[in-house]
Amino acid sequence: MDRAAAPGAHLIDGKAFAAGLVAEVAADAADMVATHGVRPGLAVVLVGDDPASAIYVRSKIRKTEAAGMASFAHRLPASASQQDVLALIESLNRDPAVHGILVQLPLPRQIDVTAVLDAIDPSKDVDGFHIVNAGKLASGRVDGMVPCTPLGCLMLLKAELGSLAGLHAVVIGCSNIVGKPMARLLLREKCTVVLTHLKTRDVAAETRRADIVVVAAGSPGLVRRDWIKPGATVIDVGINRVQTAEGPKIVGDVAFDEVSTIAGRITPVPGGIGPMTIACLLRNTVEAARERIGRTPHPAG
Amino acid sequence: MDRAAAPGAHLIDGKAFAAGLVAEVAADAADMVATHGVRPGLAVVLVGDDPASAIYVRSKIRKTEAAGMASFAHRLPASASQQDVLALIESLNRDPAVHGILVQLPLPRQIDVTAVLDAIDPSKDVDGFHIVNAGKLASGRVDGMVPCTPLGCLMLLKAELGSLAGLHAVVIGCSNIVGKPMARLLLREKCTVVLTHLKTRDVAAETRRADIVVVAAGSPGLVRRDWIKPGATVIDVGINRVQTAEGPKIVGDVAFDEVSTIAGRITPVPGGIGPMTIACLLRNTVEAARERIGRTPHPAG
Repeated sequence: MDRAAAPGAHLIDGKAFAAGLVAEVAADAADMVATHGVRPGLAVVLVGDDPASAIYVRSKIRKTEAAGMASFAHRLPASASQQDVLALIESLNRDPAVHGILVQLPLPRQIDVTAVLDAIDPSKDVDGFHIVNAGKLASGRVDGMVPCTPLGCLMLLKAELGSLAGLHAVVIGCSNIVGKPMARLLLREKCTVVLTHLKTRDVAAETRRADIVVVAAGSPGLVRRDWIKPGATVIDVGINRVQTAEGPKIVGDVAFDEVSTIAGRITPVPGGIGPMTIACLLRNTVEAARERIGRTPHPAG
Repeated sequence: MDRAAAPGAHLIDGKAFAAGLVAEVAADAADMVATHGVRPGLAVVLVGDDPASAIYVRSKIRKTEAAGMASFAHRLPASASQQDVLALIESLNRDPAVHGILVQLPLPRQIDVTAVLDAIDPSKDVDGFHIVNAGKLASGRVDGMVPCTPLGCLMLLKAELGSLAGLHAVVIGCSNIVGKPMARLLLREKCTVVLTHLKTRDVAAETRRADIVVVAAGSPGLVRRDWIKPGATVIDVGINRVQTAEGPKIVGDVAFDEVSTIAGRITPVPGGIGPMTIACLLRNTVEAARERIGRTPHPAG
């Protein structure tokens, strides 16, 4: 699908791709119910009253149920102790109806996020943030859970470009949630990978050499036209709420109107990576259930 | 120390630095014996009859004992089963006199290396190859064990250059033992990191832009003068046995005579990274013992 207004870049339709992935996941879930009497189940843990987090959690639960999967919402008060959260995680680890556990971040200040993430059974860690899963991915293994956003980026890249081997890839932003696992996935695909961040002296000098640019910086319009090599593929992970003359608007980390005139392929915001993240969460939950049943899971990516 | 014959590069004296580190480790070990009645202990597991492995193991044991630490050598026949090796690892995991466990690689074909490495208690994994330790390093955490060779490289780099933040670093070779953990360490130090490998289209184009080049390719003389930016720091991890007119000789992955005329700083082979690897093994063992005693370990690097 090409936007009529974009003279150059092919628009990568994450929304359509995600819809196809969710349909596959729903078919797999229905098959597990029919064949094994097992309905893949996702538990979502929300601690506190953050309104944005509450919206995200509701959306995840709605989409989980729409895919024919079971959902289990657990809400703890903002005053919950570390012990309360760990006790809940332990009970979810033991619950055979729960195949995936997602703890909505951020957590209140009194909670040690690392201790909570470390407490999740790695085989139920559908967010892929557990150190065992990070370690498997870091070691090039395919038997771990992969974080949803970078997995979604990788799926789009492979669907668009085929083999990525030998391509020069630059990742902007090095969070544990997106940038670092993204770099590991691209390395596993045999890209030459450059990971840039706030201390990088000249990020544009790096991106100008890239066949693939993945931006997860949380900085509206950071990436400009002269940062991009003609024909490159640009993946925009940013989701930034900005005020415009026409009211509030969601924009990415890429100056889309400029960059789409030079890139070969580009994801829009919204409608690019956003829908892929939730689709990959459902996918990871079904794969966790598949592994629990004893069927060989599909390697991530 | 500068080699008289090298017109440019400062020679990084890994041998002298390693001797200083071993002296510190020996003092720490003596202190633990005196204060806590605990002698740090390293168990080394050798499976089979590979003569090179036997030499490495003997050398590690000799140096462990020379540092006032306890050593436990365990030798299994080449015909040992997976079960035999795992049973030995389990007993070492339980043994309170053993603070570090090293399984000499390679293992015979019938043994699943990954299963063996996964079976080691992560807190005794002084080689730093366990996925929990890989995951901690990948997540930027400082509470895991770091593989010895990249840790040795990092120590030399920090001793020579001070803060590495913002420097452009290129790593050649992406093994789980050296290249990948090296990239993670450099990222933790806030370098911009490029990881190159066999599929990289033009490695020299990457290294020419680097302030730091770490080479772990296993390819004698791979890195030439025109690969290096004037003044860059070059770390040569290669240990290659080659035949010359004067007989067999150990050389690195860097064409030393050429590169030392353009680099700012360079490690020789031998006498560079080699001695640092074993020194870091002893250091990791003492840190594992320190953690076991309940004292705060020194973060790696």
